[in-house]
Amino acid sequence: MGHKTHAVCDWNNPSFVLMHVHTASFSVRTRGKGTYEITSQVEAVIRGSGVHTGQVTVFIQHTSASLIIYENADRSARADLESYFDRLVPEDADYFVHTAEGADDMPSHIRMVLTRSSETIPIDRGRMQLGAWQGIFVFEHRRAAHSRNLIVTVMGESAL
Amino acid sequence: MGHKTHAVCDWNNPSFVLMHVHTASFSVRTRGKGTYEITSQVEAVIRGSGVHTGQVTVFIQHTSASLIIYENADRSARADLESYFDRLVPEDADYFVHTAEGADDMPSHIRMVLTRSSETIPIDRGRMQLGAWQGIFVFEHRRAAHSRNLIVTVMGESAL
Amino acid sequence: MGHKTHAVCDWNNPSFVLMHVHTASFSVRTRGKGTYEITSQVEAVIRGSGVHTGQVTVFIQHTSASLIIYENADRSARADLESYFDRLVPEDADYFVHTAEGADDMPSHIRMVLTRSSETIPIDRGRMQLGAWQGIFVFEHRRAAHSRNLIVTVMGESAL
Repeated sequence: MGHKTHAVCDWNNPSFVLMHVHTASFSVRTRGKGTYEITSQVEAVIRGSGVHTGQVTVFIQHTSASLIIYENADRSARADLESYFDRLVPEDADYFVHTAEGADDMPSHIRMVLTRSSETIPIDRGRMQLGAWQGIFVFEHRRAAHSRNLIVTVMGESAL
Repeated sequence: MGHKTHAVCDWNNPSFVLMHVHTASFSVRTRGKGTYEITSQVEAVIRGSGVHTGQVTVFIQHTSASLIIYENADRSARADLESYFDRLVPEDADYFVHTAEGADDMPSHIRMVLTRSSETIPIDRGRMQLGAWQGIFVFEHRRAAHSRNLIVTVMGESAL
Repeated sequence: MGHKTHAVCDWNNPSFVLMHVHTASFSVRTRGKGTYEITSQVEAVIRGSGVHTGQVTVFIQHTSASLIIYENADRSARADLESYFDRLVPEDADYFVHTAEGADDMPSHIRMVLTRSSETIPIDRGRMQLGAWQGIFVFEHRRAAHSRNLIVTVMGESAL
C-alpha cells in the first residue's frame, strides 16, 4: 500500500503529461535586401524541445528586418515580393525626416511594420504544421549584410 | 497520516491547476476573393478545450489566403477593405515574373504577407476577450473558390 | 520511508517547475493619431507574473487602433511612419462606402489590418527579450482622443 502510494506520486513519472517551455536562439547572416529561409533551423529547435503538441513562436530582435511566412516553392514569387516592397516603400520619399542612417534605413522600419516581428506555428506529433507551400523567412530590409538574431520559444506537452 | 499523504498527492485531483494544450482543425469553403468570419468556429473549439484562462492561436495553412481580426458589425467596412487591397496590390503589375498560376496568384501572396498567417487572442473565464467590434476572418485572395485549412491551438489553465 | 514519500509528493513544493498563466489589463489614453509606447507597462506585468522563461502576448481590443513593435530610440522614425501611413491609406478615397463615422474611420480599420492586433515577445530570466531598439507601441488611427484597452497574457515557467 505504501509502495503503491509512492508510485502514484512519483514526480519523475507522473500519470499525466506536463507542459513545458523550451527556448533557443540563433543568428542568420544576411547578404543585403531579400528573403532568407529559416524553416529548417526552427524545425531543429522543435526536435530538440521534446514538445509533441503545442506551438512555436519565432521572434526577430531587430527593427530593420522582419519575419514572414511565405511561398517556399518558387523563387520567382520571392523576387516579385521584394520588387513589390521596393515600390510600396520607396527609398526616396521627400517627406522622410529620419535620414541620418542612409536612404534605406527609414524604409526598412516601415517594411518591418508592414510585416512581422514574430510568427507562431502550431506543433502536432512533434512537427510544425506548416502548409505544403509555407516556409518561414527572415526579410532583410537593409542593403548591407547583417547578422540577425532570432529567438525560438517552443511551448507545449511532451509525448507520453 | 498515510491516507492523508495519499490524498494530497492524488494525480487525478491535484491541489493546483495545471496547464494544458487543446488543438483542433477545421476547413472553410470560400467562394472567391473576400472575407469570411470564423469567430464562432473558434469559440466552439475554446468551449471544448476546458481552458479557463490562457490564449488561443488560429493558424491558416496557405500562402494565398490569410487571417485578420476586423470590424464585424458593418458589412460595408469589409467591402471597402477588399476594394482597398485590390488597389494596393493590383493584378496587372508589369514587373511580376511569377505569373504562371494566373494574374491573381502573385497578388494573393503579397496580400497574405501584408496581413497574417496567425492571430492570437486572450481567453478569460473560458471566453475569447475580443473587443465589442472585433471578429476573426479568413481573407481569401484568390478568385476561385477554395477549401482553407485552419488549426486552432488553445493553451492555458482549466477552471478549478 | 513514509516521510520521504510525503516530501517527494508535496504539491506545494514540487521537484520540477510548473507552467502557469498570468493575465492583466490596462488602458492607454491616446491624444489622437500617432504612436504611444507601452513597453514599460508590459514589463511591469511580467515582473508581477513571476514567469522566468516563456512569452508575453499583448492584445488590443479595438478595430481602429493597433499594435506595432518599432524603433524606440529616435522620435523622427515614428513621425515618418505616421506620415507614410497617412499617404498609404488616405482619408479621401472616393470608393469608400463606409463613411458614416467620419473620414478617418475607414482608413483606421485598414491601417489596423496592415499592422497587428497582438504582439508576442519571448521572456528569459524574467525579462522581455526585445532587441536594443525595439519598443511596443499602440498605433492610434483615429483623430480624436480615445481610451484603448490592452490585455497582457504571460505564459511560462517560474524560476526554481
